[in-house]
Amino acid sequence: MNKVYINQSFEPIASPILSANTYSQIAVLVDEHTKKYCYPKVKALLPRHTLIAIKSGEERKNLETCSYIWQQLTDKQFDRKGLLINLGGGVIGDMGGFCAATYKRGIDFIQAPTTLLAQVDASVGGKLGIDFNDFKNHIGVFKEPAAVLIATDFLHTLPAKEIRSGFAEIIKHCLIADATMWEKIRKRDLEKQNWAELVPHSVEIKKRVVAEDPTEKGLRKILNFGHTIGHAVESYFLKQPRKKLLHGEAIAIGMICESYISHKRDFLDEQALYHIEEFIFSIYGKAKITSQDAEAIIPLMMQDKKNEKGTIQSVLLQGIGNPVYDQKLSLAEIKEAIHYYSN
Amino acid sequence: MNKVYINQSFEPIASPILSANTYSQIAVLVDEHTKKYCYPKVKALLPRHTLIAIKSGEERKNLETCSYIWQQLTDKQFDRKGLLINLGGGVIGDMGGFCAATYKRGIDFIQAPTTLLAQVDASVGGKLGIDFNDFKNHIGVFKEPAAVLIATDFLHTLPAKEIRSGFAEIIKHCLIADATMWEKIRKRDLEKQNWAELVPHSVEIKKRVVAEDPTEKGLRKILNFGHTIGHAVESYFLKQPRKKLLHGEAIAIGMICESYISHKRDFLDEQALYHIEEFIFSIYGKAKITSQDAEAIIPLMMQDKKNEKGTIQSVLLQGIGNPVYDQKLSLAEIKEAIHYYSN
Repeated sequence: MNKVYINQSFEPIASPILSANTYSQIAVLVDEHTKKYCYPKVKALLPRHTLIAIKSGEERKNLETCSYIWQQLTDKQFDRKGLLINLGGGVIGDMGGFCAATYKRGIDFIQAPTTLLAQVDASVGGKLGIDFNDFKNHIGVFKEPAAVLIATDFLHTLPAKEIRSGFAEIIKHCLIADATMWEKIRKRDLEKQNWAELVPHSVEIKKRVVAEDPTEKGLRKILNFGHTIGHAVESYFLKQPRKKLLHGEAIAIGMICESYISHKRDFLDEQALYHIEEFIFSIYGKAKITSQDAEAIIPLMMQDKKNEKGTIQSVLLQGIGNPVYDQKLSLAEIKEAIHYYSN
Repeated sequence: MNKVYINQSFEPIASPILSANTYSQIAVLVDEHTKKYCYPKVKALLPRHTLIAIKSGEERKNLETCSYIWQQLTDKQFDRKGLLINLGGGVIGDMGGFCAATYKRGIDFIQAPTTLLAQVDASVGGKLGIDFNDFKNHIGVFKEPAAVLIATDFLHTLPAKEIRSGFAEIIKHCLIADATMWEKIRKRDLEKQNWAELVPHSVEIKKRVVAEDPTEKGLRKILNFGHTIGHAVESYFLKQPRKKLLHGEAIAIGMICESYISHKRDFLDEQALYHIEEFIFSIYGKAKITSQDAEAIIPLMMQDKKNEKGTIQSVLLQGIGNPVYDQKLSLAEIKEAIHYYSN
């Protein structure tokens, strides 16, 4: 967990690690976007290596794609001293990490996140996995990468939509851990945010929380703020091609709903709820969620990994910067919150 | 690793653990054999639970069966506080353990090995995994079970062939770690072996080695004696239905071949080689391996997980009880050893 290196460009953080190369073989996992926009900046820094290219998209984060990756490593006769570098967003990092962690019972991997979302969230904390049927990250393991190399230059390669998606996790980190930074970011447009400040800030919060509770027995659960409802919303819309939502867009919805429930329980005052809503709507707009959609979304929450014994567990806010976890939600509360969001 | 409990019957070792039940749900994984012969002895001891039944056989130790197990856990809404009890041989333990270790990034599992092979080998040491295409245990993780419950009574349910297969690992443990016990067992027929003594003896050797080197960076490799050649022989014959070999039968072949190579390198004297051959042939007979078979077997060794940088690594004996690991084998040596075995 101390092996997170952040810099504007990739070269100064990658070179010290890769020049001390003790690996028998190296592979770089990319999708069509990172192959085109990021790999050229990385290629020259690497010793002889294999490129493994998969198609982008959450809908490909599954066992079938894992089989393809495992087969590529097998065909190239990767042994246990091999290294896989995951160059891409959350899908590449989660799935590539899972494949590395399970190939021959585990080879080293390096996370080289290229999206804002992956830089401030997915690449730190050792959660790896793939989707299984309707369920996000249902199959996976906890394992730390050999290193996380975060080059903020890669953010320039991203479409605005991707930046917006990643920003949701930054908002989350502020809401659960830093009221001062929250006051700062909520007064700026998305275009005015300072990534050179916010990326390390988010990484520090996440590292601190994960270090205290690596396998999510307790404190780490606070990182799931917005995710109980948000994940279910994301899973639901994944099946509805006409209105697909990016992860952060779904989490933004989840944060409003869970803030509303926090307010209804008298944990969060009205003004704070208002600020959260106002800022999130200004960036993400409002997704259309009908009451029919809501009916289909709720059962998906039952499979959330944070649940225990058939209840739906979530994180609520007792004021900005002060989260509480293991909060049971009732179905009525969830319905009301989604209704509140939509109206 | 201290959680290995051995007793003649299942009840006294299982009850203390299962009565302190802190699990939200329990599932028992069985195959058609353990469902019939072992599950009835276990059922009454368990609180309410789910039975997950799969078909037996190494050829089903694959991703497809994992998907079935994951789906069963999902359908029953198992959460992270669920428990999976793997009641069966090596396939059930390795695959059930892998499914538990990856379901929602890991739930607890208990190994309840019912075969001699699983009791003295597979259930101890935290190696979990499944086969992938032609490659044995190619996808997996290292993870310790919550407990290992070894009831030697289950051995009475086994056909002689299964006892013979498991005995190969006991022979291996003696050859790599206890010359005195080797002298004792090699002078007895299979029917005269004392399982109540040999099972805890083998478990102790394995536990000691694994405790020193859980992820097989060094010492643990000695447990692979007989397996470099044996695994490849097993993989090869898995595809040849007319002459399928059990794991231990293949390892027995591997131990003769690797002992022969040890002798050719002047590590092992002729008499020791002769004793090994004599005893193994007396129990396992001699499998027919043609030179054509040998040609097909050798490439399979290239994918062995113990290899590094394209070489074939094995464990040799510098005398009984004194193994050396990281010994590179040449293709010529391997060919000669298989030829020696067959002639």
